[in-house]
Amino acid sequence: MSKVKVLCYSVSMDGFAAGPDQSLENPMGVGGMALHAWVLPTKTFQAMHSEMTGSAPGEGTTGVDNDFASKGFENIGPWILGRNMFGPIRGAWKADESWEGWWGETPPYHSDVFVLTHHPRKSIEMKGGTVFHFVTDGIESALKKAKAAAKGKDIRIGGGASTIRQYLTAKLIDEMHLALAPVVLGAGEPLFAGLNLPALGYECSKYTPSENAAHLVFRKK
Amino acid sequence: MSKVKVLCYSVSMDGFAAGPDQSLENPMGVGGMALHAWVLPTKTFQAMHSEMTGSAPGEGTTGVDNDFASKGFENIGPWILGRNMFGPIRGAWKADESWEGWWGETPPYHSDVFVLTHHPRKSIEMKGGTVFHFVTDGIESALKKAKAAAKGKDIRIGGGASTIRQYLTAKLIDEMHLALAPVVLGAGEPLFAGLNLPALGYECSKYTPSENAAHLVFRKK
Repeated sequence: MSKVKVLCYSVSMDGFAAGPDQSLENPMGVGGMALHAWVLPTKTFQAMHSEMTGSAPGEGTTGVDNDFASKGFENIGPWILGRNMFGPIRGAWKADESWEGWWGETPPYHSDVFVLTHHPRKSIEMKGGTVFHFVTDGIESALKKAKAAAKGKDIRIGGGASTIRQYLTAKLIDEMHLALAPVVLGAGEPLFAGLNLPALGYECSKYTPSENAAHLVFRKK
Repeated sequence: MSKVKVLCYSVSMDGFAAGPDQSLENPMGVGGMALHAWVLPTKTFQAMHSEMTGSAPGEGTTGVDNDFASKGFENIGPWILGRNMFGPIRGAWKADESWEGWWGETPPYHSDVFVLTHHPRKSIEMKGGTVFHFVTDGIESALKKAKAAAKGKDIRIGGGASTIRQYLTAKLIDEMHLALAPVVLGAGEPLFAGLNLPALGYECSKYTPSENAAHLVFRKK
């Protein structure tokens, strides 16, 4: 059966998964890029980036950070994203529906991606096998659709914080890997606030620090 | 001039410095002892513990965790503690004033310790040079008294979370070392909630992970 996973999700040491004021210029919110410093130099990210941009692949680092980055795609089929993970637009979609995600014409998903939104929109087929679907009837419906599309693969909840919090609260996540980055943001999108992980049945089952992040794996008890 | 430091302060990965429901049986709150698992086996803690209890000193570990534990006492003179760090009693002191702290007759401070409280009480002289003073007129008064007693040494703010938050908000802390323990508590005493460290001028200047904790040092920018 498909597992539901959060993987490679970066959080600041004071618990923010993105900085404040997300915009076209600051997709991760102000200061939020620092959360991802651990993954950018990895071989896995370098390969993904070159695939997206068409640039020559960088060499990239191996080791703990790359191991986690690589596991982030292992046996992953469909993704579920919150609407802000897909773009900076709030409210209704623009009439020309020109926004097709942050990732250019070949997004790194190569699978069905279910985007949670209150605003209906037709599916978009991208290069490389990524299809964005827009789900307006809630997290359980999105998960049902993802499972139907999974064909034995696992489902990755890509974020953002609000989406992950909703799935955790509903106890629908089987495994969660967080990368705590050695920065504080002070404001932004909080992951833990008001969330009692032990009470929801989650425990930190693995702690693997690297020089760039404290990697934590959570599983259901 | 004396520096004001928070050192070896343990926090869960979801931001709690103690579990909920502190009591005589659970000085760190329910589940809170897990936060301190990194320090208990260290040579520094083993020596301190044997000094407090009179037991034979354990050998103890050396390495990153012990380096931080040891630095926690380097050039430290007076301490400042919140009232709950001193004991489980809430409200007025008991008539017999028999409570003399968690640490037995020889507390590990060997200096003046200023306890923040709303309830006046006479100072208590303990074995080994520790003197508990009770300060009822606020954090700045306690710091002034500590500085007057410091004689060139530094002042350590021992906690709890509420006390540290007050000193951080007043920008009175020069250096803060947190040990993030690989556990989640889900409830208890939050350290970061509503606290914008970058806006207060603090940044994470050093990240040193060990197998047992992610050590972070914060300094004023």
